Amino acid sequence: MATIQDIGVAAAINLLSAFVFFLAFAILRLQPFNDRVYFPKWYLKGLRSSPSRSGAFVRKFVNLDFRSYLRFLNWMPEALRMPELELIEHAGLDSAVYLHIYLIGLKIFVPIAFLAWAVLVPVNYTNKTLELQLKNVTSSDIDKLSISNIPLGSDRFWTHIVMAYAFTFWTCYVLRKEYEKVASMRLQFLASEKRRPDQFTVLVRNVPPDPDESVSESVEHFFLVNHPDNYLTHQVVCNANKLAKLVEKRKSKQNWLDYYQLKHSRNNAKRLSMKTGFLGLWGEKVDAIDYHISEIDKLSKEIAEERERVKKDPKSIMPAAFVSFKSRWGAAVCAQTQQSRNPTSWLTEWAPEPRDVYWQNLAIPYVSLAVRRLIMAVAFFFLTFFFMIPIASVQALASIESLEKAAPFLKPLIEIKFIKSVIQGFLPGIVLKLFLIFLPTILMIMSKFEGFTSLSSLERRSATRYYLFNLVNVFLGSIIAGTALDHLNSFIKQSANEVPKTIGVAVPQQATFFITYIMVDGWAGIAAEILMLKSLILYHLKNFFLVKTEKDREEAMNPGSLSFNSREPRIQLYFLLGLVYATVTPVLLPFIIVFFGLAYVVFRHQIINVYNQEYESAAAFWPHVHGRIITALVISQVALIGLLSTKSAAQSTPVLIALAVLTIWFHRFCKARYEPAFVRYPLQEAMTKDTLERVMEPNLNLKPYLQNAYVHPVFKEDGDGEEEFNLRLEENESVLVPTKRQSRRNTPVPSRISGASSPSLPDAVPEHSEP
Amino acid sequence: MATIQDIGVAAAINLLSAFVFFLAFAILRLQPFNDRVYFPKWYLKGLRSSPSRSGAFVRKFVNLDFRSYLRFLNWMPEALRMPELELIEHAGLDSAVYLHIYLIGLKIFVPIAFLAWAVLVPVNYTNKTLELQLKNVTSSDIDKLSISNIPLGSDRFWTHIVMAYAFTFWTCYVLRKEYEKVASMRLQFLASEKRRPDQFTVLVRNVPPDPDESVSESVEHFFLVNHPDNYLTHQVVCNANKLAKLVEKRKSKQNWLDYYQLKHSRNNAKRLSMKTGFLGLWGEKVDAIDYHISEIDKLSKEIAEERERVKKDPKSIMPAAFVSFKSRWGAAVCAQTQQSRNPTSWLTEWAPEPRDVYWQNLAIPYVSLAVRRLIMAVAFFFLTFFFMIPIASVQALASIESLEKAAPFLKPLIEIKFIKSVIQGFLPGIVLKLFLIFLPTILMIMSKFEGFTSLSSLERRSATRYYLFNLVNVFLGSIIAGTALDHLNSFIKQSANEVPKTIGVAVPQQATFFITYIMVDGWAGIAAEILMLKSLILYHLKNFFLVKTEKDREEAMNPGSLSFNSREPRIQLYFLLGLVYATVTPVLLPFIIVFFGLAYVVFRHQIINVYNQEYESAAAFWPHVHGRIITALVISQVALIGLLSTKSAAQSTPVLIALAVLTIWFHRFCKARYEPAFVRYPLQEAMTKDTLERVMEPNLNLKPYLQNAYVHPVFKEDGDGEEEFNLRLEENESVLVPTKRQSRRNTPVPSRISGASSPSLPDAVPEHSEP
Repeated sequence: MATIQDIGVAAAINLLSAFVFFLAFAILRLQPFNDRVYFPKWYLKGLRSSPSRSGAFVRKFVNLDFRSYLRFLNWMPEALRMPELELIEHAGLDSAVYLHIYLIGLKIFVPIAFLAWAVLVPVNYTNKTLELQLKNVTSSDIDKLSISNIPLGSDRFWTHIVMAYAFTFWTCYVLRKEYEKVASMRLQFLASEKRRPDQFTVLVRNVPPDPDESVSESVEHFFLVNHPDNYLTHQVVCNANKLAKLVEKRKSKQNWLDYYQLKHSRNNAKRLSMKTGFLGLWGEKVDAIDYHISEIDKLSKEIAEERERVKKDPKSIMPAAFVSFKSRWGAAVCAQTQQSRNPTSWLTEWAPEPRDVYWQNLAIPYVSLAVRRLIMAVAFFFLTFFFMIPIASVQALASIESLEKAAPFLKPLIEIKFIKSVIQGFLPGIVLKLFLIFLPTILMIMSKFEGFTSLSSLERRSATRYYLFNLVNVFLGSIIAGTALDHLNSFIKQSANEVPKTIGVAVPQQATFFITYIMVDGWAGIAAEILMLKSLILYHLKNFFLVKTEKDREEAMNPGSLSFNSREPRIQLYFLLGLVYATVTPVLLPFIIVFFGLAYVVFRHQIINVYNQEYESAAAFWPHVHGRIITALVISQVALIGLLSTKSAAQSTPVLIALAVLTIWFHRFCKARYEPAFVRYPLQEAMTKDTLERVMEPNLNLKPYLQNAYVHPVFKEDGDGEEEFNLRLEENESVLVPTKRQSRRNTPVPSRISGASSPSLPDAVPEHSEP
Repeated sequence: MATIQDIGVAAAINLLSAFVFFLAFAILRLQPFNDRVYFPKWYLKGLRSSPSRSGAFVRKFVNLDFRSYLRFLNWMPEALRMPELELIEHAGLDSAVYLHIYLIGLKIFVPIAFLAWAVLVPVNYTNKTLELQLKNVTSSDIDKLSISNIPLGSDRFWTHIVMAYAFTFWTCYVLRKEYEKVASMRLQFLASEKRRPDQFTVLVRNVPPDPDESVSESVEHFFLVNHPDNYLTHQVVCNANKLAKLVEKRKSKQNWLDYYQLKHSRNNAKRLSMKTGFLGLWGEKVDAIDYHISEIDKLSKEIAEERERVKKDPKSIMPAAFVSFKSRWGAAVCAQTQQSRNPTSWLTEWAPEPRDVYWQNLAIPYVSLAVRRLIMAVAFFFLTFFFMIPIASVQALASIESLEKAAPFLKPLIEIKFIKSVIQGFLPGIVLKLFLIFLPTILMIMSKFEGFTSLSSLERRSATRYYLFNLVNVFLGSIIAGTALDHLNSFIKQSANEVPKTIGVAVPQQATFFITYIMVDGWAGIAAEILMLKSLILYHLKNFFLVKTEKDREEAMNPGSLSFNSREPRIQLYFLLGLVYATVTPVLLPFIIVFFGLAYVVFRHQIINVYNQEYESAAAFWPHVHGRIITALVISQVALIGLLSTKSAAQSTPVLIALAVLTIWFHRFCKARYEPAFVRYPLQEAMTKDTLERVMEPNLNLKPYLQNAYVHPVFKEDGDGEEEFNLRLEENESVLVPTKRQSRRNTPVPSRISGASSPSLPDAVPEHSEP
């Protein structure tokens, strides 16, 4: 194990590399030609424009003002200066609350670290167990500060138990405060928000098929009958997936065309040719510009045809609709209640924001959803515990021999000794690394298959899965050597009270490993984040090959977003490490605190200047964050139980089990107390907002505002098709839709009213609602 | 182990005792003086009156018509004759659906038994393992028909796995059909029901305290603002627990008075005296009749005072109210939505039926509820696993020696040899038996402490706990010898894959024990149920000592009710046994089928003629029944996994794990698909019902109907206080309640609208609702 000197050297190296990253960032961000990489958020907000309009040519690209380099770290105070309310206004609540995750880390671990260093470190250090036990083994200094230094069966363990209680209560206190705060921030955000279509709109899925009516008519009838005072309008969902694909394809062809045109204009004389086959490697040789122009023409035609088809064909209407109400109250009521006696049809939920909708999944029927969920649960289980099997087989394939077989022409190259050893050393590692890089994408695809209807819920689901994967494969995998499959096997074969022991014994031994991990991944990694190397390179490539106009340059910017699905689970690993090691090896805590502090500053800067959130879920992810920190708490308690029972202090087990029960109870209490604020919309709030609006704008007509809020982005982007499309929607405008129902035979009894007698009912129903 | 002959003898004995019970029942029920014991339901319905009005004196008490004795079993076809719809009409949906539990048992086990006997019994029987293995041990014939007869590692085990799949699929199919049917019965019942106050009413709990307004005003303001179109009226809940106690006390004194007066009138001359102390054992000697008359007078005065106090004292108003709406739609909306931004105040739920309300628990605040739930969860854990500890210590106390110490005067009696041995033999058993008899009561008290607000939910909760207790202590306790605590201990110390093995190995060995258990508890026990010995004795005692008038006689009847909390968990044990043994020892199945058949007939008879349900929850218990049968399925699969892995057929484990996963998935699917029908009330249904009602009775005024529906039964019973009480309620009648709010300081921001500006708002709000 490492000594304190080793750790110090590692810390110095990592701090230095973090410093180098910051320095590089400071220099790069000051160059005007990088401006769009490091400040895209301001461009998107329209508050900053290209700084290269005037001045000398060199000035356009390089910052020659040397004074600005001296203040190279002043982005940090700048990032911290923006007050929270302005931040919410600037970047949305999601981003602001995301930063709270780092803050909560600081709030939890700073007092815990002080307490641990004041109490636990002296208690641990004043023993001589390790010196006596392992005279010939060079015992690590860090271990002297940890629980390992306390002799078996010592009464000093009670200090650790009391501290475990203190840490748990403090963590729960912070969590509760923070949950309360985030919940009220969310409600305040929803209340102070400007009018948004999703406040009035409910997503209705699984509209049951009706032999006599179209989906649109059926939706209108149903809501006119069942929400007579509140129903305003609705938009059916079209299956425009194919159309979206075509538009996407045309866009990519257009990019190539731009590229060839730019190339042509640079070296004027030469005509450019290309091959039509796969990746331009084979196939017929054609003139590149002509080919792409004709391709784009073809696609445009296809798109027009497809758009017509989507509009005309009743089969392209999916059994789902966005139903808008006259008031927020009406929408809140509809979203929270069950509509039909069959609980799998007429499913209502709050409509996500228009830009948050994941259109592809809107039409999945209920039974299929249930089956998909089962398949994905099983698939995720296998992914977590058996992912090493395909990786190992790919690694076997990726050996030198198989490479030589597959591509004999590479043989002379590979046989060079140096290259051979590089390939042999790196190839297997690269396969694993590639898998881990693509893991969030794989999990995202799995979530998409499961059928969630909004991007935010997709990201939350993927985050949960990624967290579980990390927990099993990174945390357990590092603590106990071997693959997840081995653990599963040994845990099944071990008795239930052996499992905590196995974990508990291994925890203190891995302290130094995790300290190094925190420094590499948490310090240098976070510092590298701010450099945004990938965006930087991609932007300049695009800028060189594709950009012709200012608009193109705007499209070449890739501000990225928070990517909750991959970042949040990684933060959770630090919570887990911090809580597990707080009682065991308090030396680890300062490293965690540095991580949280650094990450807070860096991400605050990124959120202010770079990231552009694709959607706004109003902090809907907070219950997940809370739940995972609680999970970390319980894991830390279980590990401590295991550790202490191997230290002949088994009489402490009931005390710690009581703590775990209290923690779980606290979680359930918080869930019941605060989670509804993230799932439901209280009627009182809705009514307050409605009343205010009616007082402020008594003549407001919501219908035009809501009519087209949820048009598929493909129709919106083009602009040309939109009006036509709306015209068609407005055909069904009149409040009294004459029913097309011919037979009563196919009508189920309870819906008879909505069908046969509809001409008279919509008049009769509202009567009762008069005050 | 028992041979088939042994089982046959036991079956004969039990059938005989069942037959004796039926015979006794047949004779007793024909006697006119028992009429009120065996047909109370008809008396309560007013369809039957005392048959003893006319005729000879003897005829009044004894049935002399010998022909009627010949048809002594014809109550069975009679019980089966009533069609289901009439049964629902007669006894309510709860009872009708309760019978479905027995029916579902028949539906599941009859085909399974046929299949098992056709396939598994021949497969098992045509082996010679047991003959070869245990030549000197007299092997049981039953074991030859069971899985024990198959040699280790035989391929024949695949038959059992295939059968496990077949049984699971069949059970799931039946469960799904039945869930669907019960759900539609429930909805139909709710739809076809007559107007009931709970359809329009929502129970609101945790009304936040307001410094300026009373609870009643606060409720009225809140709902006028937030449900302006639907709010009709409300009733606050009074804390009348003390009043109820006093009334109860007076009633008991009145009973004693009746007893003494009757006694006095029988032997006219003697004045009766009694002692005032505990149980009449010591204290002042007084004239019994005078004493009771004066006591009753005193109590009546106290009751009048207390009633005044409850009415006047604002402290007796609890922060809870029954809020009634103008339409079912309005109530459905309010019950299913969140009202306030604080999810722990203004909690709304469907009001239970007036007679189903458990008044004592209406005022428990939210945090207290959460704490109570935790305490009860921990208490139940200890009750389940550690109940043997207090029992054992009481058993130690209840030994001869301690009895002699406690009551030395009994010594000569106890020292008689016969009595001594009886006490030594029975006392410990009696202590345990007494505990088991009182267990449902203990669990009910625990549920009451937890704070449920309706009798039906109290019973459901107790049933769940009783089921778990039975599962751990009866099922596991019988399969593996030792107390639950021992099991807990050994399960914790065993590895996770040893636990199914321990259970699996023990299962086939206990087959004969369970067969005997089924015959004693399931055959003879059910037959004894119909005799209603306890009711019979109590009725005749009351009749002799207390009854003066026909009304008294009516009160002396104790029809009892289904007592879902203790009966349903006992049925579930049979499902568990049936499913566990279906693949292992199919011989057990016919015994289970006989139980279900017999119990169905007996309880159908009891429901038609005897039981009088206290409440109607419209089959709200079905999701619990369904869930427990699924639990039994999974337990049976786990046991089979364990059994097969000890039979060197471990390769079957993944196949059976897949089956368990599928079963759990099926449960989740059913839960999402059907459970909402038992928890929520679809708006479509509500609207249909409302519309129909408006068409049928356009001038209906609901207000007087709902005004007093939820008055505390103490006020209702008396009648005299009711009108006064209502008058007071009607003081707050006018729709515009002038606010009494003085300061804005104490008002939280979001509710400002409901407070300060209320004189203008209730006018302004309804505007938007005009169609």
